[in-house]
Amino acid sequence: MQPKTPLIGLLTDFGLRDQYVGAMKAAIASLRPDIRTIDVTHEVGPHNIGEGAYLLWASYKYFPVGAVLVAVVDPGVGSKREIIGARTDSHMFLAPDNGILDLVLWEEKIKEVTVIRPEKAATRSLLPKTISSTFHGRDIFAPLAAHLAAGTRLESLGNQKRTDWLKQPFVEKDSLESTAVVLHIDRFGNIITNIREGASGVRSRTLMLKAGKHRIHGWADSYEAIPSGNACMIVGSSGLVEIVMRERNAAALLGLKQRSKLNITFKGQ
Amino acid sequence: MQPKTPLIGLLTDFGLRDQYVGAMKAAIASLRPDIRTIDVTHEVGPHNIGEGAYLLWASYKYFPVGAVLVAVVDPGVGSKREIIGARTDSHMFLAPDNGILDLVLWEEKIKEVTVIRPEKAATRSLLPKTISSTFHGRDIFAPLAAHLAAGTRLESLGNQKRTDWLKQPFVEKDSLESTAVVLHIDRFGNIITNIREGASGVRSRTLMLKAGKHRIHGWADSYEAIPSGNACMIVGSSGLVEIVMRERNAAALLGLKQRSKLNITFKGQ
Amino acid sequence: MQPKTPLIGLLTDFGLRDQYVGAMKAAIASLRPDIRTIDVTHEVGPHNIGEGAYLLWASYKYFPVGAVLVAVVDPGVGSKREIIGARTDSHMFLAPDNGILDLVLWEEKIKEVTVIRPEKAATRSLLPKTISSTFHGRDIFAPLAAHLAAGTRLESLGNQKRTDWLKQPFVEKDSLESTAVVLHIDRFGNIITNIREGASGVRSRTLMLKAGKHRIHGWADSYEAIPSGNACMIVGSSGLVEIVMRERNAAALLGLKQRSKLNITFKGQ
Repeated sequence: MQPKTPLIGLLTDFGLRDQYVGAMKAAIASLRPDIRTIDVTHEVGPHNIGEGAYLLWASYKYFPVGAVLVAVVDPGVGSKREIIGARTDSHMFLAPDNGILDLVLWEEKIKEVTVIRPEKAATRSLLPKTISSTFHGRDIFAPLAAHLAAGTRLESLGNQKRTDWLKQPFVEKDSLESTAVVLHIDRFGNIITNIREGASGVRSRTLMLKAGKHRIHGWADSYEAIPSGNACMIVGSSGLVEIVMRERNAAALLGLKQRSKLNITFKGQ
Repeated sequence: MQPKTPLIGLLTDFGLRDQYVGAMKAAIASLRPDIRTIDVTHEVGPHNIGEGAYLLWASYKYFPVGAVLVAVVDPGVGSKREIIGARTDSHMFLAPDNGILDLVLWEEKIKEVTVIRPEKAATRSLLPKTISSTFHGRDIFAPLAAHLAAGTRLESLGNQKRTDWLKQPFVEKDSLESTAVVLHIDRFGNIITNIREGASGVRSRTLMLKAGKHRIHGWADSYEAIPSGNACMIVGSSGLVEIVMRERNAAALLGLKQRSKLNITFKGQ
Repeated sequence: MQPKTPLIGLLTDFGLRDQYVGAMKAAIASLRPDIRTIDVTHEVGPHNIGEGAYLLWASYKYFPVGAVLVAVVDPGVGSKREIIGARTDSHMFLAPDNGILDLVLWEEKIKEVTVIRPEKAATRSLLPKTISSTFHGRDIFAPLAAHLAAGTRLESLGNQKRTDWLKQPFVEKDSLESTAVVLHIDRFGNIITNIREGASGVRSRTLMLKAGKHRIHGWADSYEAIPSGNACMIVGSSGLVEIVMRERNAAALLGLKQRSKLNITFKGQ
C-alpha cells in the first residue's frame, strides 16, 4: 500500500512538558519534511497501556486512508520486548508488543502482525547509527513510521506472527463474554465503559448498571436531556456505553476510576 | 470568499488528555489532507463559554486571511441548540450559538449570522452518515470547517439571523456601559479584565481599580518596571487592562478568579 | 544559509491554556503559510530559563537542517533585555539574551551571536506596526522567525557580539569543572543531571552519586533491568546521566527538584 496521504498519527504517554514529543516530530521531519503529524494524545497516564489502547481504538477510524498510527506507551523500552506492526486496507499501526494494539487488532480482525527486527539489514538501514536504550520513540518508532508513511513495506521489516490469542474486549452480546469495566475517564469526568451498543441492542436490554454503591437505571440521548444531578447511561461517540452527568464530573461524584469493575444486569436476569 | 490559505483555527474545551482533538483533526484531514490546523487552545475550562469567547477574541485577528475559526465549547451538544457561522472580509467563524462568538461579533460589528441547518440537503451531504449526539466537534464542526476552508459558501448551509441584541462587552468609554470583570486568568496569573484601552484613553483617566479588598493605583509599561511585590495595571497585548505582578502569580495573591467583579474609579468621580 | 525546510521549532513557557502559542503560530502563518512549526514544549515552568535551556539543548539536534529554533522564556520582555540570534551550519536560534541559549551555544562552540536591533530599518520593516510591551513572542519572535526560516540573513538584523564568557555547563571530565546538579525532572519522574557520559567514560569511573540523603551506586542499561524499588543511574537518551526507577517516580521518592545539588564520587577519590 502506497499511502495516499503521508500522515502519521501519534499517541504516547510522553506528556507535553518535556522535549520527547518534539524530538519525535523533529526526527520524522528530518527524514521526510512533507509528512504531517496529528496528535491523538500524549497525555496517556505514564505506562498506562490500557488507557492508550482505548484512546487509539476510539480515534484511528477517523484518520485518512494511508495514515500510520504510532502508539508508544512502552515501559519495557530497551528490554527484549518486541515492536510490532499491523496493517489493514486503510491504516498501519506500529507499537510495542505489550497489548496497546489489542483493541484495534480485535476490531479489525487482524490475525497476523509483523514483528519488527531492528537488527535485520532492511530495518537497520532505516535507523540512526546510535539507538538509545530509553527513547525508542525518537530512535526507532519515529524513523520507521516516517519510512512506512512514505511507502516502505511493513512486511520487509521483520517476520509474521499470529495474534489469535486475543480475547473479546467488549461486553456486547447476549451473555457476558467479558467483564464490564471502566476503560477511561475523560476530561469532563464522563465514564467510558467497555459495554458496547452493538447489533444486539445493549441499550434496550440493559436494566441496571451497578458502579460501586451506585445504581444507574436511566438512559439519555444527549447531555442536556439528563435530569440535573442524576447519573445516566448514554451511548457515547465511540459506540460504548458511558455513565455521564450534565455539566458535572460523574467519575469524581461516583468515585470511579479507570479499571473499576461494573456490574451490569440485563432484563429478565 | 475563496480562502487563500486553507487553514482552520481550533478552540475547544476538549483538553489534550483524550482523543477528542485528534479525532477532529483526523476528520478534517480525511476530507482535505491539505488543510492546516492551528490550535488556539483546547484547555478552555470545561463548559466555560466566557473564557472561550475571550481566548477566541484575543487571537483571531492574527490568523491569515481566509482562515476558518472553529470554537467548540458546547454544553448543549445534541440538544436543540443551534450552530452558527459568521463571516468577515478576512475570517470565518463556526460555533454553537451559546455566546462563545459574542466578543468577536461585537468587535467585527457582525449584525447577521448564518444558522446552520444540518438537515438541509446542501449541509447534510457534507456530514457523515452517522452523527453522534455527544461529539459534534468530530461529526459536524470538523467536516463543515473543512468544507468552508475549502471554499464552500457559508450562506449555502442555512438561514440568516439577526444578532443585534449584543451588548457592549468592554468598559471603554466615558461612562460605565458594562460592568468591569475579570475575563481570564492566564498561566502566569496575570488578570485580564474587560477594561479596554481605547481611543478615549482609559489609562490616563483611571484613578484606581478595586479588586476585592485590594486597591491598585499604579501603571507599568512592562513587567520589569513593576516594583517587586506590587500589583500594577498594564495595557496587555490584546489592548485590555491587566493586573499583573513581576514574576509572581497576581491572581493567586489577590484571590481573583475569572468573572470576579472589579470596581473602577475614574479621575474626577 | 537558505533553509531547505521552512520549519520553525518552538519552545516557550506560555503553556497551552491560553491563546499565546496559537497567536504566535497564527502570526507566522499570516506571513508565510507554508512554514511548518513543531512544538518542542510550551510547558517550561513560568520564567524557568534553566529548564528551557536544557529542553532546547536536548532536542535541537533532531530538527532538520535549516530549521529555526525559537525559545521564548522571557521574564524581561519589554525591558532593555536584548534578543539574540545564533547560527550553525545546520540550525538557527532566536531567543532573549538571558541564558536560555547557553547550553546550545556551548555545545555548538558558538563564540559570536547577533544582537537583534528591532529599531534598525532592516529589522523594523519585518515587524508589525504596533509592538506590545508584554508579548514579543507574537510581535517580534514570530515574525522574525518566519523571515529567518524563509531565508532572511540573521546578520542583517543586528550586530555581532562575543559570547566567550560561557562556562562549561556539564560535569564530564576528570576533574569537577562544574557542580553536579539536577537539570530537569521529566514527566515520569526521571531525574536528568548535568553529568555527561563523554569520551572519558563517566560511567566506568563513577563510584557513587549522593542525592540528599540517598546514595546511588548501581547502573542500568534499560528501565526493565532496574531491580524493583531501586534507584539506578542510567545514561539517558541525551547522553546525560539520569537517576531513574522502574515504573516509579524517582524524583518524588528521592525528594529531588530541578537545581538540586548532587554529590558525585569518582573511583579512587
